Amino acid sequence: MRKLFACRMDHVHRSFIREILKVTEDPKIISFAGGLPNPRYFPVEQVADATAKVLAENGAGALQYSTTEGFLPLRQYIAERYRKRFGMQVDPAEILITNGSQQALDLLGKTFIDEGDPVLLERPAYLGAIQAFGIFRPEYRTVLLEEDGVNIAQLENELSRGDVKLFYTVSTFQNPSGISYSSKKRQEAAAVLERHDTVLVEDDPYGELRFIGEEARPICGYYRKNAILLGTFSKIVAPGLRLGWIVAPPEIMEKLIIVKQGADLHSNILAQRIVWQLLQDHELDKHIRTVRAVYKRQRDLMVEMLKRYCPTEVRFTRPEGGMFLWLTLPEGMSALDVFHEAIKENVAFVPGNAFYVDGGGENTLRLNFSNADEAMIEEGIKRLGKVLAKMMEVYKL
Amino acid sequence: MRKLFACRMDHVHRSFIREILKVTEDPKIISFAGGLPNPRYFPVEQVADATAKVLAENGAGALQYSTTEGFLPLRQYIAERYRKRFGMQVDPAEILITNGSQQALDLLGKTFIDEGDPVLLERPAYLGAIQAFGIFRPEYRTVLLEEDGVNIAQLENELSRGDVKLFYTVSTFQNPSGISYSSKKRQEAAAVLERHDTVLVEDDPYGELRFIGEEARPICGYYRKNAILLGTFSKIVAPGLRLGWIVAPPEIMEKLIIVKQGADLHSNILAQRIVWQLLQDHELDKHIRTVRAVYKRQRDLMVEMLKRYCPTEVRFTRPEGGMFLWLTLPEGMSALDVFHEAIKENVAFVPGNAFYVDGGGENTLRLNFSNADEAMIEEGIKRLGKVLAKMMEVYKL
Repeated sequence: MRKLFACRMDHVHRSFIREILKVTEDPKIISFAGGLPNPRYFPVEQVADATAKVLAENGAGALQYSTTEGFLPLRQYIAERYRKRFGMQVDPAEILITNGSQQALDLLGKTFIDEGDPVLLERPAYLGAIQAFGIFRPEYRTVLLEEDGVNIAQLENELSRGDVKLFYTVSTFQNPSGISYSSKKRQEAAAVLERHDTVLVEDDPYGELRFIGEEARPICGYYRKNAILLGTFSKIVAPGLRLGWIVAPPEIMEKLIIVKQGADLHSNILAQRIVWQLLQDHELDKHIRTVRAVYKRQRDLMVEMLKRYCPTEVRFTRPEGGMFLWLTLPEGMSALDVFHEAIKENVAFVPGNAFYVDGGGENTLRLNFSNADEAMIEEGIKRLGKVLAKMMEVYKL
Repeated sequence: MRKLFACRMDHVHRSFIREILKVTEDPKIISFAGGLPNPRYFPVEQVADATAKVLAENGAGALQYSTTEGFLPLRQYIAERYRKRFGMQVDPAEILITNGSQQALDLLGKTFIDEGDPVLLERPAYLGAIQAFGIFRPEYRTVLLEEDGVNIAQLENELSRGDVKLFYTVSTFQNPSGISYSSKKRQEAAAVLERHDTVLVEDDPYGELRFIGEEARPICGYYRKNAILLGTFSKIVAPGLRLGWIVAPPEIMEKLIIVKQGADLHSNILAQRIVWQLLQDHELDKHIRTVRAVYKRQRDLMVEMLKRYCPTEVRFTRPEGGMFLWLTLPEGMSALDVFHEAIKENVAFVPGNAFYVDGGGENTLRLNFSNADEAMIEEGIKRLGKVLAKMMEVYKL
């Protein structure tokens, strides 16, 4: 019999996290499983005002077909923001508007990955990238993510093999680990990438959500040749609008535009104009300061509660920004087992194993602190601590 | 040296039409080249009202991440409309919201097409599908599109070979030809497809834009097993919102949802809620009646002007709806040559050759009548007629 689907679909299944998130939809459950921004701080009125203005001033333009590259004034804004934040020179022609960063990953997978191509990920790695690239059937390899960024010797070692198609990193407040590269590691990684001319895909959805320490220049600020930088409005404006972007050098951008055109012609132009109008009428930095302050409070409280309620054998990261904390349970303990027990106590998280493409990480788990109010964090971590203590007894640790 | 891009990018270039549309951006040029709806009739105020309401009632819900499948009430509306229009039973669970039909084509290409898979197209075929499927490197085959639909004997013949992965059709007011399948041909095609269990992708962006004759049940109304039906709000609400949908049976939908999730998580939820709200507060049929009346006037005028100004050797379709007229020049004449002359006279169209994946069609061209006012049609067709008459002298026809 003819095969119904393409071979690339053979090993594609519904995401494990997606299934987990379904379980946690029960309103009884305090969920730290999702990766959602806090909707209380969405600029709802600003979006409403901007929409009214956009439609009143050029309704036809906001509702008609538009260019694949995206709304030029919005791309100019993004370029200017890179200049202000990092002194990076980005030409608006090097920016393509996408449907969130997820579409950027899909377009990049399509543009770069042939079946069997080695793609280098961090260990652990962002699940959305694992899925988006995965459909093009690369051979995944990994480099260890340490507390201050990727292990440079391993990176050098992997790239010396000469066949790696691209290296994918979330260099700031990584999902799932919350880890950020130190400035030193950024420069070292850039030097290694430069030496090997490797395609770098640096995904930066969380960089603006820093509440401790100094802003860190992206690795793309040090290495430009085959360097691709992804950004998004999902965490600084709102994710429902599905607006992200790709910064890439001209040779690569030329291909990405063609691929984007085939993929959906262009991103929602009303949404692009709304966001641009909102950025004209309101100070983005002020909004970001509010969000940062809130997330810092929530992160601090979660850290405090973990200290209070969690067995001391459990280690956890103290991220300087972003949306996630990363827990490491004692060796031999299964976060998936803990998950099943935790659900009984009406608290949820994401077991870490799914972030390890080559196995391992069974004793790790991810906690989201952005989309939880303070009462939820207190009560949820208390419940989780109880479950962990009980499980450690079971494991006789 | 390592290859920078994936092999699928080897023969991918900017679309010819895209380059043509650039030429026609010059405001001096009267362009019948695009495929745009008439922006004068976009429901701008209705979109503004709906947005205000959506944001006031549930701003957070409209701006947060959402489900991959799409906004359920909107999918229910779509299902109900199929029931009302054609008596078709569609479960909302069989509907996936996409970023316009173009994304539907991309998701389907990814889900079904392996390199070298035979994909059957109409001759001529819609360029957006040629591009979206093309990146997955199928082997294109074609069946002739006649005045009342595809040639059934050819369809039977091609499907008997047993290796065709899918058949793609725009069965109503086709782009580029304006041709619609007769009711008889729809049923005959369904029977052939059923006999071979072939995957059918029936793209129906224009079906609601009928201004002459009776509504025709989609081929998917007769053949359901591996039948996929595409629809869009681009022509009945507005294209800038990028909202279309796929109707597919459960086994196929399961895969499409996974692929959509990897591609961009979900479509813009604010836009989905806006369209749903607009459909609650306003009668879509009333709006469609207005658009139909306008397009009919423009189509009638274009037909009249072609009769008046065009050499009688030039044949053209009289579509009962949609947005396009299709011209066939005398054998041996090149529409691309005509195009270059026409540009000098400040009138533009799309030469038909690009719609023929296996060559031919050099003497055909597409005219868009939806996005042109009456004065433009009069003057533009007059200019085109002059160019055609002149060119026929050159060709000594």
